[in-house]
Amino acid sequence: MDKHGHLIVVSGFAGTGKGTLMKLLLERYDDYVLSVSATTRAPREGEQDGVHYFFKTKEEFEQMIAAGELLEHAQYVGNYYGTPKAFVDAKKAEGRDVILEIEIQGALNIKAEYPDAILLFVVPPSAQVLRQRLEGRGTETQEVIEQRLKRACEEAEGIENYDYIIVNDDLDVCVEQMHQIIKAAHFSPLRRREFLNQLRQGLQDFKK
Amino acid sequence: MDKHGHLIVVSGFAGTGKGTLMKLLLERYDDYVLSVSATTRAPREGEQDGVHYFFKTKEEFEQMIAAGELLEHAQYVGNYYGTPKAFVDAKKAEGRDVILEIEIQGALNIKAEYPDAILLFVVPPSAQVLRQRLEGRGTETQEVIEQRLKRACEEAEGIENYDYIIVNDDLDVCVEQMHQIIKAAHFSPLRRREFLNQLRQGLQDFKK
Repeated sequence: MDKHGHLIVVSGFAGTGKGTLMKLLLERYDDYVLSVSATTRAPREGEQDGVHYFFKTKEEFEQMIAAGELLEHAQYVGNYYGTPKAFVDAKKAEGRDVILEIEIQGALNIKAEYPDAILLFVVPPSAQVLRQRLEGRGTETQEVIEQRLKRACEEAEGIENYDYIIVNDDLDVCVEQMHQIIKAAHFSPLRRREFLNQLRQGLQDFKK
Repeated sequence: MDKHGHLIVVSGFAGTGKGTLMKLLLERYDDYVLSVSATTRAPREGEQDGVHYFFKTKEEFEQMIAAGELLEHAQYVGNYYGTPKAFVDAKKAEGRDVILEIEIQGALNIKAEYPDAILLFVVPPSAQVLRQRLEGRGTETQEVIEQRLKRACEEAEGIENYDYIIVNDDLDVCVEQMHQIIKAAHFSPLRRREFLNQLRQGLQDFKK
């Protein structure tokens, strides 16, 4: 079997609980490690460099962009955020699956770079449940909720680009399902290249 | 979730135990049903029409071919063998997954007809193990074994067309893995069309 891990990209509508799912998956299984982003924003209290973020100056960050050292990057409220390739590649080489949360366009860019990345899209059991969850939070105005539902409607058009949909109905069931789906995804021929090359070489050798 | 089942196509080298794997899977899980082939060969003792085969005359079989009622068909030792679409579609509509064993070319033809079919390729843990298993049977001459290994070498080139490889090392572990992989495969957006259509419709309705 191939020894290295894979990149796991998680997207999904706001309010589907993808953050909680990822947190539980990381707590329960040693197979996974969360991707650590680089950012130009200042560290908050308790945040450690290399653990929560790789903290960079604007100049350092722009050098990383220029050198192609980021898998993807974006600006948000005046700060840069991005995914350092070196961290992802190091963890993959150790045999760990690296998990990354990102929106659709970022996911597609990553798939272009890593065709063997596993793309997961978290959905609610129904549109009605999504609305209830967003309203149930009680933290957003009706206007913000309407915006999120509209955004979900747009995002839903891109789901066919993902390898699997993760239906978050019961959180506990869903985490297990997510783990099983990721395990199964490793058996795609795309993700068993080393093993298949060895098998083919072995069969070829019999002809000699 | 989508209520209907899917077609599961199993291929693999001779000597990888795919027949035993399918048998155990069918015994352990009610989710699956074996596809029943149509044939022009005479029934053997104990064989029942509609259970072991659909027994057809040559004329009936050729009418089925002409009417497009077979998913695929082939001739073997002067008899026709084929997969009736009606049986597969009826079982899928009942929510069962229909399992079919077939070689690579047939599998590719089926994928063209059913793009949501789940294609599994059974492989040994290594080329060496395959050779040992073929020799260990003690039923084939060295010449036949060499032919099978040569054929495996050719077949190995087509594995990238399959959705998953099933590595048959420990039979018991492998059956469970096969079941988990098939379950996971159902979460591809390709196999959740009805669910995704409902979700999208529900999100659209909020805009009204």
